[in-house]
Amino acid sequence: MYQKFDEVGGPAHGAERVRRLREKLKGLNLAGFLVPRSDEYQNEYVPANAERLLWLTGFSGSWGLAAVLTEKAALFVDGRYTLQAARQTDPVVFDVVKVAETAPSEWLATHLGEGDRLGYDPRLHTVNDIKALAKALAKAGASLVPLDDNPLTALWTDRPPPPAAQVVLHPLELAGRSTEDKIADIRSVMLSGKTDATLITALDSIAWLFNIRGGDLPHTPFVLSQAIVRAGEQPILFISGRKLSNEVRDALCAVADVREPEAFEDALAALGAAKARVGLDPGRGSQWIADRLARAGAQIVEGEDPSILLKARKNAAEIEGSRAAHGRDGVAVCRFLAWLDGQPADNLPDEIGAAEKLEEFRRATGSLKEISFDTISGAGPNGAIVHYRVTRSSNRGLEADSLYLVDSGGQYQDGTTDITRTVAIGTPSEEMRRHFTLVLKGHIAIATARFPKGTRGSDLDAFARRALWDAGLDYDHGTGHGVGSYLSVHEGPQGLSKRGMAELQPGMIVSNEPGYYREGHYGIRIENLLLTRELELKGGDRPMMSFETLTLAPIDRRLVDVSLLSPAELDWLNAYHAKVEREFSGKLDENERSWLSSACAPIKA
Amino acid sequence: MYQKFDEVGGPAHGAERVRRLREKLKGLNLAGFLVPRSDEYQNEYVPANAERLLWLTGFSGSWGLAAVLTEKAALFVDGRYTLQAARQTDPVVFDVVKVAETAPSEWLATHLGEGDRLGYDPRLHTVNDIKALAKALAKAGASLVPLDDNPLTALWTDRPPPPAAQVVLHPLELAGRSTEDKIADIRSVMLSGKTDATLITALDSIAWLFNIRGGDLPHTPFVLSQAIVRAGEQPILFISGRKLSNEVRDALCAVADVREPEAFEDALAALGAAKARVGLDPGRGSQWIADRLARAGAQIVEGEDPSILLKARKNAAEIEGSRAAHGRDGVAVCRFLAWLDGQPADNLPDEIGAAEKLEEFRRATGSLKEISFDTISGAGPNGAIVHYRVTRSSNRGLEADSLYLVDSGGQYQDGTTDITRTVAIGTPSEEMRRHFTLVLKGHIAIATARFPKGTRGSDLDAFARRALWDAGLDYDHGTGHGVGSYLSVHEGPQGLSKRGMAELQPGMIVSNEPGYYREGHYGIRIENLLLTRELELKGGDRPMMSFETLTLAPIDRRLVDVSLLSPAELDWLNAYHAKVEREFSGKLDENERSWLSSACAPIKA
Repeated sequence: MYQKFDEVGGPAHGAERVRRLREKLKGLNLAGFLVPRSDEYQNEYVPANAERLLWLTGFSGSWGLAAVLTEKAALFVDGRYTLQAARQTDPVVFDVVKVAETAPSEWLATHLGEGDRLGYDPRLHTVNDIKALAKALAKAGASLVPLDDNPLTALWTDRPPPPAAQVVLHPLELAGRSTEDKIADIRSVMLSGKTDATLITALDSIAWLFNIRGGDLPHTPFVLSQAIVRAGEQPILFISGRKLSNEVRDALCAVADVREPEAFEDALAALGAAKARVGLDPGRGSQWIADRLARAGAQIVEGEDPSILLKARKNAAEIEGSRAAHGRDGVAVCRFLAWLDGQPADNLPDEIGAAEKLEEFRRATGSLKEISFDTISGAGPNGAIVHYRVTRSSNRGLEADSLYLVDSGGQYQDGTTDITRTVAIGTPSEEMRRHFTLVLKGHIAIATARFPKGTRGSDLDAFARRALWDAGLDYDHGTGHGVGSYLSVHEGPQGLSKRGMAELQPGMIVSNEPGYYREGHYGIRIENLLLTRELELKGGDRPMMSFETLTLAPIDRRLVDVSLLSPAELDWLNAYHAKVEREFSGKLDENERSWLSSACAPIKA
Repeated sequence: MYQKFDEVGGPAHGAERVRRLREKLKGLNLAGFLVPRSDEYQNEYVPANAERLLWLTGFSGSWGLAAVLTEKAALFVDGRYTLQAARQTDPVVFDVVKVAETAPSEWLATHLGEGDRLGYDPRLHTVNDIKALAKALAKAGASLVPLDDNPLTALWTDRPPPPAAQVVLHPLELAGRSTEDKIADIRSVMLSGKTDATLITALDSIAWLFNIRGGDLPHTPFVLSQAIVRAGEQPILFISGRKLSNEVRDALCAVADVREPEAFEDALAALGAAKARVGLDPGRGSQWIADRLARAGAQIVEGEDPSILLKARKNAAEIEGSRAAHGRDGVAVCRFLAWLDGQPADNLPDEIGAAEKLEEFRRATGSLKEISFDTISGAGPNGAIVHYRVTRSSNRGLEADSLYLVDSGGQYQDGTTDITRTVAIGTPSEEMRRHFTLVLKGHIAIATARFPKGTRGSDLDAFARRALWDAGLDYDHGTGHGVGSYLSVHEGPQGLSKRGMAELQPGMIVSNEPGYYREGHYGIRIENLLLTRELELKGGDRPMMSFETLTLAPIDRRLVDVSLLSPAELDWLNAYHAKVEREFSGKLDENERSWLSSACAPIKA
């Protein structure tokens, strides 16, 4: 099983570890120290040996920041994690602070005074993070002090070893574009920005650029590495030689100057010595890199990592791969849904059992590399917790006349999937059906949207909410995020949310996942992945785009209140189900096929 | 007539005036000089004696910037004015540059070199404008030089005198809140920003704050003036005593320290001498003010003018006033539309005749103070020019089987109106009706929107476009702008557009004006003003808002293709027309009443 259901973290060690950290700080003449969730790669997932925040505080969420001062300590989390952080940390030691209410910079400016020195590890913070913090602290008369040695390193004695998974080549027929060509693309962006070199620090950018995949992190096939693309010479790839077979090494050496990670610092110094103009993404690159470059004499040109946009626009091979991955994954989801519907009412599975079964069906495809993220398997009221992760202690049995929300995905070599279905267990109430149908209307409004060139995700987000808004309802998350191509299930710059300011472009994949959450009762979410495509329209006078729905699996008909759907919405749903049945019925056994046939039967107005 | 139809501007004098300006610049050792449309009040309209850009270039648009360098000169305009600027200026002297393609800062950085000094009049540019320019020029090694004496002053010898219209008090029963209370509101904003004083430089802010109206500018009842609100003392109002009757002076002196405009500079110096923390809106205040404050030792705190948001949230009296103004204005528009429909096909009016007639009907209400802006009276292809202003030379007759677009508004003491109707002259084509109905669907989508607290105008904008997008069509302007209360017809921060990032709040008035423009053929726009209101919804769990449509006048039924409307859309249209007829039929003569009755007759599906 890729997914583990153990409780991790907890408040047991916080007091002792913070006490020892404070002793260290005293010796360093520091008024405090910052411990973020991120490691030096600024990635969503970090390896076990980089779980510093978890080790110090006991908090296991995917984003957080601890500030340990002489007398006070705070753990900053976002709305998703307020409850979990309170449960996992020692309230005597840590104040849990919601960042939406008090920004870390604000809290620090209040609790630090004139002349106070706040330490931080510059490898673990981006340039933008430090810029914002420095500005806020300056107002309070305090200063930020970068530390070459992270004080936690000496304290954390039973730290696991770093990961060292083998690197595999991502075949050209799936990548669709060679590393040489991708490097040429990046160089042409560099040319317009007049840079001599550009830092590629994001792990998905590196995996994409060099057409490699690895296993250093959970759920995402990345290799811990760094890269520098240079205008006139081969790019330099900093990667541990222990992860490279001879075949992989030969392939990489053909396109790059391959060096050990330890050589990264010297290479930055060399750029400085050459007085190079160096592109650095201030939202992705660390302050440590910026310091090294600046100190050595390089001129830093801030701008978005050029691979971000190139990677987001999937090419024909990646699109074909994604369609194939969705076909395969959809069959697994169908089999799971059929299995779930077949469970006797007096012996329903629990959340863990269902998540395990779903992973089994995905494994049975023979192609599953990993799951895209820990499956959100939420029965009844747990479905209303947007980022719920089931553990042995939270595990809940599915119950009659309730809703079950399951949000999951698979990593396949040809594509990454992400799908949410909400399933009626027993007989749903009228209210459940009404709310489900309002969410479905929003889902269809996005799936059927047509929009001109230049449209940003933020322009479309409200389409998904209108039916809910009409009823005085809403949901507190974005409608969709970008998705990678056998890379991260969360990828920028595209997205469908109020903050999704990137223009949608042909080839971009985004999720379409409106929801509704009735706290303490149930959660509803319907998620498919969408491909952005060009659209020819007779009679139109603008270059237009639309979405192709990639994800295929029945949407629970028992939850649809057809009286709330317009004829066009009903047509969409029936056509979608007809396609699901057409694509999958030949790939299922007889029982499953008969289940699919009723799950996809047309609904009459 | 408030509206004049004469051609203004033109290329005749540009060469000579630019030559004389260049002589001046030579003497000042300057490589160039900037001439913006704005005057020292940064307002949309400027008095005749501040029309420097028009005097220099011959261009009469409402926004523009000229840069006169030693060898080259550019006139920067936006998309609305490209054609007009080319027609009105001498192509030998000025390159017309579209700002969307080349920003002035970019153009200047290209055409200025190391050590070049670019002069500007710091009274005529905002702090933000100068910040952006300075940054761009620094990269080119050039510098900005503020000039105490604008070189145009000496050259422009037949400059008109400044306006000196009498100030009138805006009665409390219409303002709804006394100046004392408004000052207290501003002081409480200042308290949270910890400022000792705040500059109120926007003319609509001053008129709102002191409950005064004037006549210094076309179309907007503003008084050329400046103000400083202080935490501990009376606010200072800088206003020419020649504009004040004894009654007005007494009223103002009761709430403010009233001084002559010449005293403004000393007052800024006094704030500096007191080392005051002074609030200044960098998007509205001039660089001249910032320079005076900084030089004198004041600490500038940049932030939005606190009156902007207070003014935008209309109180109960202003809302009642607006409803009354719309009732009055709507009757005038109805009478105009009835008159227009009664014109014989062989003797149709022209654009000027129609605009004059509409102004006549508004004057006949006995309450018209001004028109809100020059009426856009566009016949046939002229309707496709979004900001068309008819002149004697562009004037076009209305023709059979065409569309006529008329966008106009009135200033009344109780409110400002702004309405656009598109009218079928003769028999419209099927295509015209289809396009009109798509625009109408967008209009209805906004009018009927419900949305939660926190929603910004940018979140709603696409609702107005969806029906057009579905057909591959769009329009290149925002869906709506904020509207003042017997103030400017354009007011921030609210708006419905991709850039409308302010949260909509109860009491804000915005226009709802989607359109479609077929270049060379016809233009379509349907505009009503909307009031944002709180909404109680049974079964909902969020604080919600919705719009009340303030504008009342028939929407041309002959242009509606009912087969394209949903039942809910048709219901909205019929209910709207029923309300128009109910409100107005008692206020019209018999012919007009019979016209209204057919114009408002319910449409059957």
